[in-house]
Amino acid sequence: MALKKKPVTGMKDMLPREMEVRDYVIGLIKETYKDFGFSSMETPCVEHIENLCSKSGGDNEKLIFKILKRGEKLKLDTAETEMDLIDGGLRYDLTVPLCRYYSNNANELPSPFKALQMGNVWRADRPQRGRFRQFMQCDIDILGEPGNLAEIELILATTTLLGKLDFRNFTIRINDRKILKAMAAYSGFAESDYDNVFIILDKMDKIGLDGVAAEMEESGYAKDAVEKYLNLFKEITNDVAGVRFCKEKLEGFLDAETADGLELIISSVESAKEAEFKMSFDPTLVRGMSYYTGTIFEISMDEFGGSVGGGGRYDEMIGKFTGQNTPAVGFSIGFERIVMLLLERGYELPTTKPKKAFLIEKKMPAEGMLKVLDLAKKERAAGRQVMIVNMKKNKKFQKEQLAEQGYTDVTDCYADSIDQL
Amino acid sequence: MALKKKPVTGMKDMLPREMEVRDYVIGLIKETYKDFGFSSMETPCVEHIENLCSKSGGDNEKLIFKILKRGEKLKLDTAETEMDLIDGGLRYDLTVPLCRYYSNNANELPSPFKALQMGNVWRADRPQRGRFRQFMQCDIDILGEPGNLAEIELILATTTLLGKLDFRNFTIRINDRKILKAMAAYSGFAESDYDNVFIILDKMDKIGLDGVAAEMEESGYAKDAVEKYLNLFKEITNDVAGVRFCKEKLEGFLDAETADGLELIISSVESAKEAEFKMSFDPTLVRGMSYYTGTIFEISMDEFGGSVGGGGRYDEMIGKFTGQNTPAVGFSIGFERIVMLLLERGYELPTTKPKKAFLIEKKMPAEGMLKVLDLAKKERAAGRQVMIVNMKKNKKFQKEQLAEQGYTDVTDCYADSIDQL
Repeated sequence: MALKKKPVTGMKDMLPREMEVRDYVIGLIKETYKDFGFSSMETPCVEHIENLCSKSGGDNEKLIFKILKRGEKLKLDTAETEMDLIDGGLRYDLTVPLCRYYSNNANELPSPFKALQMGNVWRADRPQRGRFRQFMQCDIDILGEPGNLAEIELILATTTLLGKLDFRNFTIRINDRKILKAMAAYSGFAESDYDNVFIILDKMDKIGLDGVAAEMEESGYAKDAVEKYLNLFKEITNDVAGVRFCKEKLEGFLDAETADGLELIISSVESAKEAEFKMSFDPTLVRGMSYYTGTIFEISMDEFGGSVGGGGRYDEMIGKFTGQNTPAVGFSIGFERIVMLLLERGYELPTTKPKKAFLIEKKMPAEGMLKVLDLAKKERAAGRQVMIVNMKKNKKFQKEQLAEQGYTDVTDCYADSIDQL
Repeated sequence: MALKKKPVTGMKDMLPREMEVRDYVIGLIKETYKDFGFSSMETPCVEHIENLCSKSGGDNEKLIFKILKRGEKLKLDTAETEMDLIDGGLRYDLTVPLCRYYSNNANELPSPFKALQMGNVWRADRPQRGRFRQFMQCDIDILGEPGNLAEIELILATTTLLGKLDFRNFTIRINDRKILKAMAAYSGFAESDYDNVFIILDKMDKIGLDGVAAEMEESGYAKDAVEKYLNLFKEITNDVAGVRFCKEKLEGFLDAETADGLELIISSVESAKEAEFKMSFDPTLVRGMSYYTGTIFEISMDEFGGSVGGGGRYDEMIGKFTGQNTPAVGFSIGFERIVMLLLERGYELPTTKPKKAFLIEKKMPAEGMLKVLDLAKKERAAGRQVMIVNMKKNKKFQKEQLAEQGYTDVTDCYADSIDQL
């Protein structure tokens, strides 16, 4: 079989320039989140196919890279369906594996458990610009904490990180699934219609209030309900006052605690935040995943023109593994989008060490080599990154290449002038 | 399908305690290798099945996790062999993907290219204690440098790293495939027998000189050749003098440059090394992979009772992709073994920040919460990792748990004494 030079379809070779930014961001993420009391943890990239196909993954379950059974377990002759041939798959997110991990290791974990995960996930999506079939996810989750302290800490940690990366003037949009439902109930929609109503509502930022109204009428919903529903959105402001308005208006449909909790989250974050951003109560925020049970939130950034992260509360997912529900809330940042934005922006890494190169003449004798190695050791001890390379015929071009890598301080080392080094 | 709590067979959930050590070691590896001029790079975890089955992987090719074709490409009905169903696999090492990467990206890479790779690899090995089917590999490679400067830098960088992790008194055993071959030729073995001769020689440290002699005679090799061969090993010393002895004794079978190069490597490393270890010329060192073409080396550590890393020169592997050979040499450290040794040793991380916890009374009002969030911000600014948690009924047990995580400095925060915080 002929060898292939390109990476597999939809996946990417990471060049050194991008890796430098990635390594820096990874380091900063770990440091920042650990400062907020989160602990690193990791699950295998391969997960049981049963867990991946448990309906927690939504559409991602259609995009699984599936792994063939091995050895005697593989029965090609008698296999009737794909499932007879496979026993695992590459994880498509970090949340399903986290729930399995927690159910497997809860006895050895603190409670609440503040988890930090960074790892690749795989989705066999149609390849398109800027989206890859293997990409890094970066999630923080708090498991075992029912109170809104969890949401507050997740949002503070995430926004502090973004601030350290020089992102400003972004918005954290926040809502609660219970408010979504209360608004639909108040307006008179049937519970069985909620999912579809929210799918239409989710298009608000693209098609506007009129577009949403039109689609809802097309779907055959009562004009009264649609009008009552959309009038709510006209009245609700995107701040704490909006939350209070919901609390009053939706009385009987909405627990007072839900509104009070949301108000506490917004006001606490606004008061304690370490970065320049805005909290915005957004009653049109839906978020796709069906597993969310309470608060939901998303990072909007004008620069990017879309979401660069999001999360929410999913109090019923761990229970699928353990039989007992455990409060859980997570925040995932779009690592790849953030790296892309930094690269586009020509982000200067703040922590790069100075670089120093030694060019060695080809016929350098052993004692000259030792001298250079010794000088290199001293340069490293003084905090520099040191490159030693053999001199090429086209020294000018070689130096240009080195300069591109940041090695502008270059010493030529010749055999007949070792003493002068 | 029932959900499964355990990770897939042979793979491992990483608990926070182990992750702390892993994160620290990863950070130190990146910093140290970058100081030696290496650049991070990454390939996708999924590789073309053609590349994985190109006979460069030796026995690892039998252990591939294979990935099913997707969508319309999957033809279950007409598939005759496994290969009809799959198009990719999880990489079993970082060397094959590196060669593909270099062949795909050489135009955008400096020459020589000093690559640093850290990433998971997968092998469906029989599960056994301390060996897992997913494990981290950590390789440095220098591509495009024919001279022995490459070996010297790889060994210095690797041993400097081990020194920083407080490993001492280990040995770098070094040999050259060309010396192996010259010794066999000098003794009168037929070239077609070399591979088998080396397989037997490789058992020297387990079965000794007599055992090797016995196996060689069993294999039917001429007594003369075996005797001449084994006498060589009795005469060769494990130092530069041993290399010089080979150079003289094997004249006509061995290029003088090979011996001179090996001597230069050993003496340069001994002179410039930054850690406490020994270079040892070991003519019995074989290393399994068939792709090595020149120098080969291995780290021996008494603590571990085996190899914790190794590498060598493989000048002909990139040519399989490009049609043109490119000098290449790499050094891989056994990341998982190193982490295991550190954990067993109860290694204290030198860079851990001090930790501070706040326990909040459950009924804390918003203003109290804000006060604590503000104090936490100040503690982080002062360089501490801060944990804020809601107080539990069994506060004593909660504090014991926190202490286990390193949070011994704990402040109780009550609503009625916010002012005193």
